[in-house]
Amino acid sequence: MNGNLTIALDAMGGDNAPEIVIKGAAIARVRYPDAKFLLFGDHARLRPLLDRNAKLAAVSTIHHTDQYVAADEKPSIALRKGRESSMQLAINAVRDGDAQCIISAGNTGALMAMSKVTLRMLPGIDRPAICALCPTRIGESAMLDLGANIECDANNLLQFGVLGAAYARTLLGIERPTVGLLNVGEEDIKGGDVVKQAAALLRDPTLPLEFRGFVEGNDIGAGSVNVFVIDGFAGNLMLKSIEGTVQLYSEYLRQAFRSSWSSRIAGFLARSAFKRLKARIDPRRYNGATFLGLNGIVVKSHGSADGFGFANAIGVGVDMVKNGLNDIVTREMASYAERHGEQDKALAN
Amino acid sequence: MNGNLTIALDAMGGDNAPEIVIKGAAIARVRYPDAKFLLFGDHARLRPLLDRNAKLAAVSTIHHTDQYVAADEKPSIALRKGRESSMQLAINAVRDGDAQCIISAGNTGALMAMSKVTLRMLPGIDRPAICALCPTRIGESAMLDLGANIECDANNLLQFGVLGAAYARTLLGIERPTVGLLNVGEEDIKGGDVVKQAAALLRDPTLPLEFRGFVEGNDIGAGSVNVFVIDGFAGNLMLKSIEGTVQLYSEYLRQAFRSSWSSRIAGFLARSAFKRLKARIDPRRYNGATFLGLNGIVVKSHGSADGFGFANAIGVGVDMVKNGLNDIVTREMASYAERHGEQDKALAN
Repeated sequence: MNGNLTIALDAMGGDNAPEIVIKGAAIARVRYPDAKFLLFGDHARLRPLLDRNAKLAAVSTIHHTDQYVAADEKPSIALRKGRESSMQLAINAVRDGDAQCIISAGNTGALMAMSKVTLRMLPGIDRPAICALCPTRIGESAMLDLGANIECDANNLLQFGVLGAAYARTLLGIERPTVGLLNVGEEDIKGGDVVKQAAALLRDPTLPLEFRGFVEGNDIGAGSVNVFVIDGFAGNLMLKSIEGTVQLYSEYLRQAFRSSWSSRIAGFLARSAFKRLKARIDPRRYNGATFLGLNGIVVKSHGSADGFGFANAIGVGVDMVKNGLNDIVTREMASYAERHGEQDKALAN
Repeated sequence: MNGNLTIALDAMGGDNAPEIVIKGAAIARVRYPDAKFLLFGDHARLRPLLDRNAKLAAVSTIHHTDQYVAADEKPSIALRKGRESSMQLAINAVRDGDAQCIISAGNTGALMAMSKVTLRMLPGIDRPAICALCPTRIGESAMLDLGANIECDANNLLQFGVLGAAYARTLLGIERPTVGLLNVGEEDIKGGDVVKQAAALLRDPTLPLEFRGFVEGNDIGAGSVNVFVIDGFAGNLMLKSIEGTVQLYSEYLRQAFRSSWSSRIAGFLARSAFKRLKARIDPRRYNGATFLGLNGIVVKSHGSADGFGFANAIGVGVDMVKNGLNDIVTREMASYAERHGEQDKALAN
């Protein structure tokens, strides 16, 4: 697609909204010169911020509302009482075709609930999955579900595989992504019934992906496959364990370089090395988790993101729009249903 | 207990057995001068190794067998065909009271299966859990189950809480350990039915622990509680994700310090800082996962452990023996059953 890229932003979502949203939009405007922005939020707070950036103001429209979803609001309450909230109105813009994607740094549960109800699912997909990129030894891999579904059946995991592969194909540029199912061992006998059934479904050679069977937790850092599939309970716990480990290691590293004068001097001399390291593990680079499987593109920024991080979350949405990710998934699921419909007919005859 | 500490060693288990087993025993002999060792394995290979260490030989007995469990053997096959294996004979020594604990670096699944069948469970405990210490920002915490049980019910998780608390009390010296249940969020409404029911059971104030409710994946690195409780599926995936992340971070760090001449020089100057860092994240320090809940003390060393790592696994077993861990758990579960029996009676009247 070209020319007509409009991005809906929940300007009031996140710890430091609306400032970081406007900063992020300003960075994204430079990266995507053809983009237009719909800003949903408090006009009185947004106008002064926009007035300081004439170029951003020229491609932005403010849609005023004085309501927003609080960070600790229960999703069910947000759904019922938040009809005029900045989050809901921004999602509506995607539903109504006024924008091609929506980005919010607000309440994750509320964003998921509102998006599901407002946009509904893509044909052939039963449930949305939270998907994000994570750094590996050899590049980046996609991982899903990171917390949308506490319990998953084999069909959910199959669909996550197809969604994740389409995501890796379009965002990482890998023609036939490798997919692994996370489990407690690589042997076929490992794990419970659900992962075994999901593995059987994913082994279908007509799927647009290369299934590599079971993989283990340490395969994520090694980047053994392009797409890691897991239920949302274990996936969320793993993601946060990984984040916690990076923080712990960074703390140990700081302490080691503060433990003596000679190591302090070495640390000073090594500041360019530390800068390079910091850039590689910078969580802002990986900001922007998408809700895959919805009939509309929704990206969740970390609540504590700064402008740079929020701009990267916008970038994830733009990549998905430009590559027509949802059209690809729709086509693939239709083709899968057709093949399996024919198989079922053949079996019945 | 004092004086009579006998340790059964599966001398043939592990990638580098029997050499690392003998090296580990030699280190443990110095640490625990009152210990005796029963070595199960091939006499022709063990004798020459012992002959090089007269002090270890003086407190060791070789029990010859030429059979051992292969690393890739299925547990069910090992159980059936491994009756004369070094692993099974070493476990038998604990069952028969000839040793107080058994340490093996061999096949985890086989060790678990043989231990369950041979030793059976402690009264009041339905299933064993794999438990290990992990480093945190403020010290060490225990985490279980790390992979013994793919699916757990609320009672299993309650029992893991009691087992983990007893472990933390005796091995970390914490009178009333704090226990957290890993979940996808801290709020009471988060998670599936099993974790919610387990939380309700763990809230019982008469339990010998302080339940802190739900905790998240990043709480492990932060050390928010002394004991992290989780089912074996997510627990195993988290543990291995953490290991993979440490490897990835170490690789990034090496690359950053190799990226230019100035950073290489800084790295050279910082070698004492790196040494300190390496010692803190050294997986050998945390070697030795215990199978809690069995009526006998079983410690699993990493298969690729060296002598230092294997000695630490022996140390975990010795600590559990010296502190009478299993007696404590038995007493606590009996007391729990009695209280709840009385409550049930009170409710019935």
